Amino acid sequence: MSVPVGILTVSDKCSRGKAVDTSGPALAQLLSEAKTNNRWVVVTTAIVPDDKNLIANTVQNWCTPKSYSAGGMHAEPLCRLVIVTGGTGISPSDVTVGAIEPLFTKRLPSLATAMVVGSLKITPMAALSQVTAGVVCDAAIVLAVPGSKKGSVENVQQVLPALPHAVDTLMARSGTRHLHEN
Amino acid sequence: MSVPVGILTVSDKCSRGKAVDTSGPALAQLLSEAKTNNRWVVVTTAIVPDDKNLIANTVQNWCTPKSYSAGGMHAEPLCRLVIVTGGTGISPSDVTVGAIEPLFTKRLPSLATAMVVGSLKITPMAALSQVTAGVVCDAAIVLAVPGSKKGSVENVQQVLPALPHAVDTLMARSGTRHLHEN
Amino acid sequence: MSVPVGILTVSDKCSRGKAVDTSGPALAQLLSEAKTNNRWVVVTTAIVPDDKNLIANTVQNWCTPKSYSAGGMHAEPLCRLVIVTGGTGISPSDVTVGAIEPLFTKRLPSLATAMVVGSLKITPMAALSQVTAGVVCDAAIVLAVPGSKKGSVENVQQVLPALPHAVDTLMARSGTRHLHEN
Ligand code: NA
Repeated sequence: MSVPVGILTVSDKCSRGKAVDTSGPALAQLLSEAKTNNRWVVVTTAIVPDDKNLIANTVQNWCTPKSYSAGGMHAEPLCRLVIVTGGTGISPSDVTVGAIEPLFTKRLPSLATAMVVGSLKITPMAALSQVTAGVVCDAAIVLAVPGSKKGSVENVQQVLPALPHAVDTLMARSGTRHLHEN
Repeated sequence: MSVPVGILTVSDKCSRGKAVDTSGPALAQLLSEAKTNNRWVVVTTAIVPDDKNLIANTVQNWCTPKSYSAGGMHAEPLCRLVIVTGGTGISPSDVTVGAIEPLFTKRLPSLATAMVVGSLKITPMAALSQVTAGVVCDAAIVLAVPGSKKGSVENVQQVLPALPHAVDTLMARSGTRHLHEN
Repeated sequence: MSVPVGILTVSDKCSRGKAVDTSGPALAQLLSEAKTNNRWVVVTTAIVPDDKNLIANTVQNWCTPKSYSAGGMHAEPLCRLVIVTGGTGISPSDVTVGAIEPLFTKRLPSLATAMVVGSLKITPMAALSQVTAGVVCDAAIVLAVPGSKKGSVENVQQVLPALPHAVDTLMARSGTRHLHEN
């Protein structure tokens, strides 16, 4: 199954062209090379400054079911997986988590814990990244990961094996919820 | 000391008799065989559908101090430990966490983290279970664990050694709070 | 760089002189011996009972920028790091977390997770401590750790390597936020 993905880079510098976004492309490459059952297809990317409204509006827009499939039966969101990179640090200007958590129709704290636990094995500095995860619009998985190329890739790698089932659950019209129940 | 336990199975299928609840009995067996100082006694079990109000009302009812002991001195809840199995997945119809977290008089996020961290060592899919833990009515420990037999047992096993002290603290009339403080 | 630190001991017994605070001094010693780039200087300590308002007011007071540096340019808080020890247990009288989390201008859940994950390697009882971490007044890092000498030291040790960068970020007038971004 092909899964549409959006990658949102949050960085004042990159948005003003004063730095080159290396994290977004690195995440796209990670997904394209992932040995998972799903085929991840990056359908949209954007770079926005550390602005709460711009971050929230972009994520909400990408996750809201609205386009209709050929059969006209189901409203589909542009993305089923959104990765937001950047704005997860300790500075007051890091606003990504505050921007996206209010959008969550379901919080996924275990997914965030898995990213932190795995990343802590690589560096104790992982304790300073406010990674988070949740479902937006009951339709898409949204992850917030650090802005550094290394940190963003390392965090997503921790949960990559679990993402296909997460997305499959949201895409399922019926029946798959209990797939792993017994 | 004997500790009264309630086990609540949340499953649309099991509640309609379309599937057999294997997780509830597996949890009861785990507790009965636990080599802890406390003796866990399952005093009540129930199976409810994925319905927020039914879940919340059952947990609240089991944890509310109301029956009186022989001496008439202390109101006691029916249960001092409640394990809720099921409804912790990613689907919008999984509502267990949203049902019970508002009941918490104290959140116990470290207990949830311990379940996740331990379960992640067994399977990366543990990242997809929204396990949670807290105190309800200042009287009982409540855990929410996955609906699968394997996942429910594995999660509870991670925190079983810590549960006796947790329950003892809530059951103590006085003095035990500082037991481990110095 | 020298970093001003406050250590707040929360304990009914210690505040009434019925027990000696060993955790506060142990934390002070840990920081003074820490091999980090920053030099931690304990500038204030206090012992308060398990009282939500007293805890909150003390932390807020220590973290609020108000004293002015010689140049008169920047309001500085008394402390850039506050460690609160005690009141993180399961008993209803343990109120530290409920007192300080409302003060957070930013939650730092990964920092709390790092404390829990590391402490769980030492003892399964770490699952029962509601440790938490956040930024207060956009100015200071605040950690809540267990009241026991052993537990308080073990929790802070888990995140000690990450604390200098955390504090540096808050103390920076400009520019350092992106230090680790690319
Ligand atoms: Na379920």
